[in-house]
Amino acid sequence: MTKNPFGVNLTFLPSLNPPDFPAYTRVILEEGIRIVETAGNNPGPIVKTLKSANCIVLHKCTTIRHAQSAIKLGVDFLSIDGFECAGHVGESDITNFILLGRARQSLGGVPFIASGGFADGQGLAAALSLGAEGINMGTRFMCTVEAPIHQKVKQAIVDASETDTELVMRRWKNTTRLFRNKVTDEVVKTEKESQTGKFEEVAPLMSGKRGREVFIQGDVDYGVWTAGQVIGLIHDIPTCDELVKRIEREAEETLSRASSLVVPRPKL
Amino acid sequence: MTKNPFGVNLTFLPSLNPPDFPAYTRVILEEGIRIVETAGNNPGPIVKTLKSANCIVLHKCTTIRHAQSAIKLGVDFLSIDGFECAGHVGESDITNFILLGRARQSLGGVPFIASGGFADGQGLAAALSLGAEGINMGTRFMCTVEAPIHQKVKQAIVDASETDTELVMRRWKNTTRLFRNKVTDEVVKTEKESQTGKFEEVAPLMSGKRGREVFIQGDVDYGVWTAGQVIGLIHDIPTCDELVKRIEREAEETLSRASSLVVPRPKL
Repeated sequence: MTKNPFGVNLTFLPSLNPPDFPAYTRVILEEGIRIVETAGNNPGPIVKTLKSANCIVLHKCTTIRHAQSAIKLGVDFLSIDGFECAGHVGESDITNFILLGRARQSLGGVPFIASGGFADGQGLAAALSLGAEGINMGTRFMCTVEAPIHQKVKQAIVDASETDTELVMRRWKNTTRLFRNKVTDEVVKTEKESQTGKFEEVAPLMSGKRGREVFIQGDVDYGVWTAGQVIGLIHDIPTCDELVKRIEREAEETLSRASSLVVPRPKL
Repeated sequence: MTKNPFGVNLTFLPSLNPPDFPAYTRVILEEGIRIVETAGNNPGPIVKTLKSANCIVLHKCTTIRHAQSAIKLGVDFLSIDGFECAGHVGESDITNFILLGRARQSLGGVPFIASGGFADGQGLAAALSLGAEGINMGTRFMCTVEAPIHQKVKQAIVDASETDTELVMRRWKNTTRLFRNKVTDEVVKTEKESQTGKFEEVAPLMSGKRGREVFIQGDVDYGVWTAGQVIGLIHDIPTCDELVKRIEREAEETLSRASSLVVPRPKL
């Protein structure tokens, strides 16, 4: 898809069948990838391996405490992920307005990008204002011409409102924001009513295999799939080129308009 | 406290002893107040009275649907209140990054200010970027020299982190963000464990009278009191004059720095 540099993500999370992360890391390095985003719990040993191979490592996190730990581990960059995000929102529910401000105040100048809640140039201008170096977009890029997912999924994002996501798995301290559908309704019901509180009761519903089928077949109710609150801000399916150029233009116009509100003070 | 124009707030919420709102409204008009902020459920009849007396009416809301209804009722201005806010966050948990963006897209140009999550000029610049006309600050002004509350409460805000708030009352669809203390711990426990689900079980804890004592006596554990996630961004107790001037300066510097990132494109 590109001849330009790109990075890969390694996410460490509770899993019924945990991936072989050291093997993944070896392949990443063998293939010459030099930008890696880590996310989730305790990236320590992997970060060490990546840094000793001269990779640029970003760590994505939903709390300032985790960001500070990651800096001690030697990461180069943080990705600050607010409560509005798709997927794993963490357990403290701090929104990006607060989290980005705290990152600016407390990460000792280590650079960070803003993740969760971004779809347009106004959002980019706001993130830059709060101290971020840029924005990270997942849900918005899912809804582009090039995204290798079924057209019906893209259309579902366009049709959805900001209230059409659901938080699940809080009971197991692995809270995840998903597109609300028949399956998430069932997960929420089981999560609320289960007497045993065993994860196994919802595991078949939360299956990644079923989720992947949604993207292939286009039946948005077949399994769980992640989406951020930002679905409410997405209204079309542009090419990536159109999207990025539009965001750039909007950000420039936004900053220019906001700056024009400044009333010059007399110097005397 | 001021000779300049000011407004008052009228909040319509479920209450054990509902205030006499029409009487409040009469007093507001008799006293010559011409700016009123309404909030909470169904402000319809009161908005009509206020508008026919030529008041400027702002309605504060946590959803776009309610903002659109308020516009139909004739309000002049919206106050858009994100999930990070103090007090009543609503039931849909949409953060200000999303909610302000949606307001810009869907309120047909009716102006709005941003509420919830603001303490500094970087936040103001971000809110302006997202389309707001300004910001509304509650928690931040509580932590000023002039705020008529006990010094120990102000110090508690300075000492707190962004994770030191608690959501209560979700069970009764009246979700409220409060400063986390011994009383909110007890409310959360009762809310979770109560077999009857009767509000009366937590009512003595949620008492406004006890909350007011916190502000007078300075014992932050005596009752419930509201605070936003923004407590994590508040680190001092300036005068209002210092605070407002600092925010203005920070916003100008922020917009100027962000604008300097724009690379002029060749015209040819």
